[in-house]
Amino acid sequence: MTRAVVLLSGGLDSATVLAVARREGRQILALSFDYGQRHVSELEAAREIARRFAVEEHVVFPLELSRFGGSALTAPDIAVPKDALEGGGIPATYVPARNTVFLSIALAYAEARSADEIWLGVNAIDYSGYPDCRPEFIDAFQQVILRGTRSGIEDGTPWIVAPLADLSKAEIIRCGIELGVDYSITRSCYDPDAAGRACGHCDSCLLRRRGFEDAGIEDPTIYR
Amino acid sequence: MTRAVVLLSGGLDSATVLAVARREGRQILALSFDYGQRHVSELEAAREIARRFAVEEHVVFPLELSRFGGSALTAPDIAVPKDALEGGGIPATYVPARNTVFLSIALAYAEARSADEIWLGVNAIDYSGYPDCRPEFIDAFQQVILRGTRSGIEDGTPWIVAPLADLSKAEIIRCGIELGVDYSITRSCYDPDAAGRACGHCDSCLLRRRGFEDAGIEDPTIYR
Repeated sequence: MTRAVVLLSGGLDSATVLAVARREGRQILALSFDYGQRHVSELEAAREIARRFAVEEHVVFPLELSRFGGSALTAPDIAVPKDALEGGGIPATYVPARNTVFLSIALAYAEARSADEIWLGVNAIDYSGYPDCRPEFIDAFQQVILRGTRSGIEDGTPWIVAPLADLSKAEIIRCGIELGVDYSITRSCYDPDAAGRACGHCDSCLLRRRGFEDAGIEDPTIYR
Repeated sequence: MTRAVVLLSGGLDSATVLAVARREGRQILALSFDYGQRHVSELEAAREIARRFAVEEHVVFPLELSRFGGSALTAPDIAVPKDALEGGGIPATYVPARNTVFLSIALAYAEARSADEIWLGVNAIDYSGYPDCRPEFIDAFQQVILRGTRSGIEDGTPWIVAPLADLSKAEIIRCGIELGVDYSITRSCYDPDAAGRACGHCDSCLLRRRGFEDAGIEDPTIYR
């Protein structure tokens, strides 16, 4: 049986990735990060999603990225931009090197546990403009694996799988609905209130809301 | 002034790297990791080295790599190989993806603090055979920076600097002595006793001891 580490944020994309990995028969090690994100309610969603998909193991890894600051997602003094999706450029919610750090720890986990693959929900169609969501970043990281790890040198694993890379948000949602994902438990908002209700105006909310509209599926998100 | 994140383990190599960065006039952000290593006494050495070289800041970053196991350095049930330097292959002290994880967090730190460089003491001449100490690994990671971070895309920073890459252990020691490194406070042993005294027989001790011999410099290490 192929074993896969799946990066699970608790958002819409990673929940869909988990469902696809399950459909493909993978034995799943789910990995989430408690990195000082202001939207920490996504971790509760991640735990519930991992439970429903009966993963082999779910690790919530503590990571003090907020110690470095530099992002609206981890520094309380930087505001999350609202209604600014078409602004162009890399937004203030970009967390320095976040996906590089997440992939590297997924790699440590995968190699220590002899997992063959690392799955993650990056997507460069309907996305916020983060450089570490693009295919050229994923390709470069794969080269790091092939040259810098024992498993990469010995048998070319773990292999990075990014099943959503070429899908629109509407296509991702349709795919997940077919696979039984309950999107009402997923959390995408960067700036939820204390009860976990979405703001409806950050980039992530705007992309998610538009995705449901384009897919012709009712949006189950609870907005404040 | 050029600002540099310097990876500082507390060992011989990284202490020398710090001294070179200081000589080159860098403003230094030192970064160490508390990753569940059995040789945690190296962190006390790192703190003392950082203090003596008057770095701008020294972060000791907690990182639960021991949670994944898979290495003699982090799993208590795997023994550190002794007197086995010429055994060939990648040794049991290899920590899955360690330098990838360390570099990725150094990258997050560098980008958040607008550092231009990341310095580290990898060396593939007198080394233990770890794949993530080789130049092809460093080159691959540089590509990740250039494609996956805001700073990499905007101005090609941070740049990875590996000043020891082509030096023998004896050359590294001579360089450090010239720059005033007090090697008596550095810690290289993978398997020290509770008092921090070196075992004298792990790969790291053997390389270090041979380096002092080859350099014709008295070895200040305290062996048990």
